[in-house]
Amino acid sequence: MVTIRGAQPEPYCPYFRHAVELIGRRWTGAILRALQADVCHFSALVGVIPGLSDRMLSERLRELEAEGLVERHVIPEMPVRVEYGLTAKGRALGEVFAAISAWAAAWHDDAP
Amino acid sequence: MVTIRGAQPEPYCPYFRHAVELIGRRWTGAILRALQADVCHFSALVGVIPGLSDRMLSERLRELEAEGLVERHVIPEMPVRVEYGLTAKGRALGEVFAAISAWAAAWHDDAP
Repeated sequence: MVTIRGAQPEPYCPYFRHAVELIGRRWTGAILRALQADVCHFSALVGVIPGLSDRMLSERLRELEAEGLVERHVIPEMPVRVEYGLTAKGRALGEVFAAISAWAAAWHDDAP
Repeated sequence: MVTIRGAQPEPYCPYFRHAVELIGRRWTGAILRALQADVCHFSALVGVIPGLSDRMLSERLRELEAEGLVERHVIPEMPVRVEYGLTAKGRALGEVFAAISAWAAAWHDDAP
């Protein structure tokens, strides 16, 4: 039997919930967006995101590495350089971020 | 001057950050998804989202009303019934949630 309700999502999905709470954790969405825009050095990330501390950035980058969204590249020069970038899984968030940006641009003025 | 970088988002956007941290707050994404699927009674929302307490649901619904995403309808029957639903601003998150669902479905097996 085909119903209109068939087009709706399941009311609850654990994968959805994990994903939305992962990208929405404090600072995390902002960090992922900056990485998407090719900001790849630790100090540049701190500089670009207002209020972000070194400690919080370290913590979030470790979480995002553990989730497979971010990878850390050590460039063996003197002095050693470290760069961060999105993995394929992290880059695949591009459509999510574009949808959030479009929604925020359309509706932010309506916020109380 | 046109450059490839022109196609990328700004590294930081306060509206984006507010939006992603709003929908990603603990329980909030799950509540909005259930409302999107027409779960509209308080007790049904508690029943559908594993681990959600009455107290947390009340708090999140108040936050979402304040943000203009959710509205509360009091139906003057005896006993009085209360229903919750998405506003136009809340319903406009449909594309965001579809993108997150698609990403979660494609990538959750790769999570550690």
